[in-house]
Amino acid sequence: MKQYFYLFGFILSSFCGNAQIAFQAERQSWLQKAELYKPKLVESEKHPLYLVNLVQDATAFQGWKAVKSAPLDTLYQTSIKKRSGVVADFGEHLTGYVSFSLQAIWGTSDAPARLKLTFGEVPAELATPFDPYPGGLSRAWLQDEVITVMEVPATITIPRRMAFRYVKIELLGASSYFDFRISDLVCKATTSVPAMPSALASGTSEQIAAIDKVGLLTLKECMQTVYEDGPKRDRRLWIGDLYLESLANEYSFRNFDLTKRCLYLLAGLAQNDGYLHSNVFETPEPHPQAGAPFLFDYSLLYNVTLKEYLRATNDKETALDLWPIAKKQMENPKKYMDPYGVFDAATAAKNRWWLFVDWKNDLDRTAAIQGIIIYSMKNTYELAKQLGKESEVAELPEMIKKMTDGARKRMYDKKMGVFVSGPNRQISYASQIWMILSGVATKSEARNALKKLQTEKDVVRPGGPYLYHYYIEALIQSGLSDMAKQALLTYWGGMIRKGADTFWEVYDPSDDKVSPYGFYPINSYCHAWSCTPVYFIRKYADIFQK
Amino acid sequence: MKQYFYLFGFILSSFCGNAQIAFQAERQSWLQKAELYKPKLVESEKHPLYLVNLVQDATAFQGWKAVKSAPLDTLYQTSIKKRSGVVADFGEHLTGYVSFSLQAIWGTSDAPARLKLTFGEVPAELATPFDPYPGGLSRAWLQDEVITVMEVPATITIPRRMAFRYVKIELLGASSYFDFRISDLVCKATTSVPAMPSALASGTSEQIAAIDKVGLLTLKECMQTVYEDGPKRDRRLWIGDLYLESLANEYSFRNFDLTKRCLYLLAGLAQNDGYLHSNVFETPEPHPQAGAPFLFDYSLLYNVTLKEYLRATNDKETALDLWPIAKKQMENPKKYMDPYGVFDAATAAKNRWWLFVDWKNDLDRTAAIQGIIIYSMKNTYELAKQLGKESEVAELPEMIKKMTDGARKRMYDKKMGVFVSGPNRQISYASQIWMILSGVATKSEARNALKKLQTEKDVVRPGGPYLYHYYIEALIQSGLSDMAKQALLTYWGGMIRKGADTFWEVYDPSDDKVSPYGFYPINSYCHAWSCTPVYFIRKYADIFQK
Repeated sequence: MKQYFYLFGFILSSFCGNAQIAFQAERQSWLQKAELYKPKLVESEKHPLYLVNLVQDATAFQGWKAVKSAPLDTLYQTSIKKRSGVVADFGEHLTGYVSFSLQAIWGTSDAPARLKLTFGEVPAELATPFDPYPGGLSRAWLQDEVITVMEVPATITIPRRMAFRYVKIELLGASSYFDFRISDLVCKATTSVPAMPSALASGTSEQIAAIDKVGLLTLKECMQTVYEDGPKRDRRLWIGDLYLESLANEYSFRNFDLTKRCLYLLAGLAQNDGYLHSNVFETPEPHPQAGAPFLFDYSLLYNVTLKEYLRATNDKETALDLWPIAKKQMENPKKYMDPYGVFDAATAAKNRWWLFVDWKNDLDRTAAIQGIIIYSMKNTYELAKQLGKESEVAELPEMIKKMTDGARKRMYDKKMGVFVSGPNRQISYASQIWMILSGVATKSEARNALKKLQTEKDVVRPGGPYLYHYYIEALIQSGLSDMAKQALLTYWGGMIRKGADTFWEVYDPSDDKVSPYGFYPINSYCHAWSCTPVYFIRKYADIFQK
Repeated sequence: MKQYFYLFGFILSSFCGNAQIAFQAERQSWLQKAELYKPKLVESEKHPLYLVNLVQDATAFQGWKAVKSAPLDTLYQTSIKKRSGVVADFGEHLTGYVSFSLQAIWGTSDAPARLKLTFGEVPAELATPFDPYPGGLSRAWLQDEVITVMEVPATITIPRRMAFRYVKIELLGASSYFDFRISDLVCKATTSVPAMPSALASGTSEQIAAIDKVGLLTLKECMQTVYEDGPKRDRRLWIGDLYLESLANEYSFRNFDLTKRCLYLLAGLAQNDGYLHSNVFETPEPHPQAGAPFLFDYSLLYNVTLKEYLRATNDKETALDLWPIAKKQMENPKKYMDPYGVFDAATAAKNRWWLFVDWKNDLDRTAAIQGIIIYSMKNTYELAKQLGKESEVAELPEMIKKMTDGARKRMYDKKMGVFVSGPNRQISYASQIWMILSGVATKSEARNALKKLQTEKDVVRPGGPYLYHYYIEALIQSGLSDMAKQALLTYWGGMIRKGADTFWEVYDPSDDKVSPYGFYPINSYCHAWSCTPVYFIRKYADIFQK
């Protein structure tokens, strides 16, 4: 029956041809514009600084630290047979292509050599066995490459792009009739960022300056030919990451062409029904992740990104060009709206809509999604006004009011002074945050709710930096600047105190080894959505730079 | 003291400059001629025939056999996730470059895949774990490659040249969000042999025809841009292999330019003192195995190879060109000659001369080396005569006589009717063989000695096919044609009965797992020095083809 149904659908779509594809006419032009604004990558040669020992230390991040042990020449001037397992430290997070040479010491290269190079963003990645692999994502994301070198001398370039600071070199096999050494280890590092932005105000605290710097490096590493989510893993454009990266970019590198490219790329690769794919790939040719569940909240944040892009650039031409796809996203909320103006998240999820909000399994997403919809509607209406397109979304103000009323009636617990979500009336950061950012909560309700989170038991906390961004924003919007600054210093500052060179995809101050994928070495340790201190520190200078 | 000595030597050689390099003037011209006769490889596309299961079977060679299990399409049309561990059978031994494609089945390639391909010449290579590696040669000779494929579709070419019949494909990691399959597995096979030689006489037994065919395939696989010893392992030109390959080539493919190239290459890369390196490499530029011990018996066989080349081709120009280096090799035997005309093998070995003769640790080599010297001297003198150069090696006839007398006095045990070697008067195949081939033994002594080997206890038997070649030759030279034919049928026929597609580097009928390198999967299963049934069957047609 199921087979037959699919077959029928296929025949139907074949008969109806292109008529069913939304924005058929615009897609090609959107993709051409995406291509037009593809940045040329800036390449630079980076060399390791010195050798390190990996030392087990219960107080270090994930139990391992890298301790400077010897100058690089100790590697370059000694047989690799004697140095197998050596770890070189490039001193910074790099994204790029690694080469090295092998030079004979004595004898004639009479047999191939087998080498294993393992690249790590953090020390524990080099010290934790990868196999048997317990993780949920592809084992192949882990950056260990086994190489056969047929003869020495040789110069080897690993074809795969790596994201790393450390590289471990192991010799798995070699002839005993000759000897050789490694030399000229080099990374051709790439980014689309040509230069660092202006310094912070003098007098900015060292802690804030350090967080800003790591945030900039994180963003720089993720800015390749799209805003990538993470240069080590996924390496693709997600709407949620794009939104946060483009905010940080506005206050730092100001590469608005990259934002424009990404907005066009997503539009050009929308689903046939006109709703947006949550993520897209650039190679071998631009394409979406076909078959992936529809990620509702990300599609809504596309509109916010476009509106912010227009505000920052005043590029009305682009905003007008992309307006139809933004408008289209506004049709979705109606589908699961109950008579009281509450979005039926449970039914949407049952129908394979992915409601992300945060990496947090036990989070009830009803309130947060309600808030995100309202937030998106308000931003979309604002966008429409700036483009003179209010008439095309004339129903939005009424919907916003209805959803706000619905949220206040169903989700605000006056007695407790917090927003609750779902049948079990769950209290979470996510619910408060989005009720605040959407403007459902009044300023004083917002302040009360955010403070209540600090004392209330059984509160569902943020699962990672993505939601933490919205938390800081909610604190600032609620006038709780000191709390915002403190939260930023505690959370992102916490990563720095644990040795972060770039900010991590996942961070739980109480559990270094938490992973949404069942194996912490597969986490990305340079992740776009964690870069936003750059945005806060530079946008709200009066809070953070004094 | 030792350091100082080396330093002094270095200074001395710096002062004396090039004066100390023998054949300084000729080397470049010899290397140029080697390059001139470098063959263009013939490439052909080979596809697997079907899939096989590896089945454990105590009666099979090394305990494993490959059993046809499914058509190739079973692999090509099914997810590799469901077929990981599959083994494809190309149906013949191939030497070349392997490519394959990956095609999506459903979903979008959202993460890299990690694959391992293991290539085997024989089934057990695919069923025996390689690690922890117990062998003495480089682990990297083993043909397993781990590959990261960043996106699908993809076409992958493994850069390393492989020698194999079977390939096992394992999936070590992939995304669960899309699926893919392997297709277009192909080997661009190379050899410098353009076509197979003429058929054997009608009426030749099936067994002999089968041995001839496998011998031809072995030789064809080893004939690349030099006569390689083995296309899987070592992959280089050794004098000992060259001698046997060039004999087999004369009676089959008749590619005399390849023999000429190899003779020039070895001459052009001689040691500075003018004695020959046992083996040389072609890339990145032609070079010898510097620092390896001097392999005395191989240097002597160079002269025999040159003489046989001249006989087969009548190419006097080449033989005259290379005569000086052949003549030079004749200076070595004098160095360790005792007053009775016996070469002092023990002292030579102590001085780091490698006396190979056979892969056999417990073999006393004194008698065999004595025979090889005489054999080489006789061939060299024959060569000199054909070139009108007798006067340049006028001392040879006398030396031959003296060494023959010495051998007869010291090594022939009249009572037992065998030649004995060393202080323990060891009786071995090697000693009888070389006393016979050198002409030290009379025809009747030869016949007696060879027959005695069959019944005598405590006889050191041949360690492998290299010495077995000389054994067959000795039987024929002694008029024991039936024994020669029987031995060939038993020994090389034994490999075929155990499933050989090409003849093996090492073969002990009583021990499938014997290895000179401590791990039988590192043995070469297509090895030049085992191809010589081709020579016997085709040269001695009256013995083998009737």
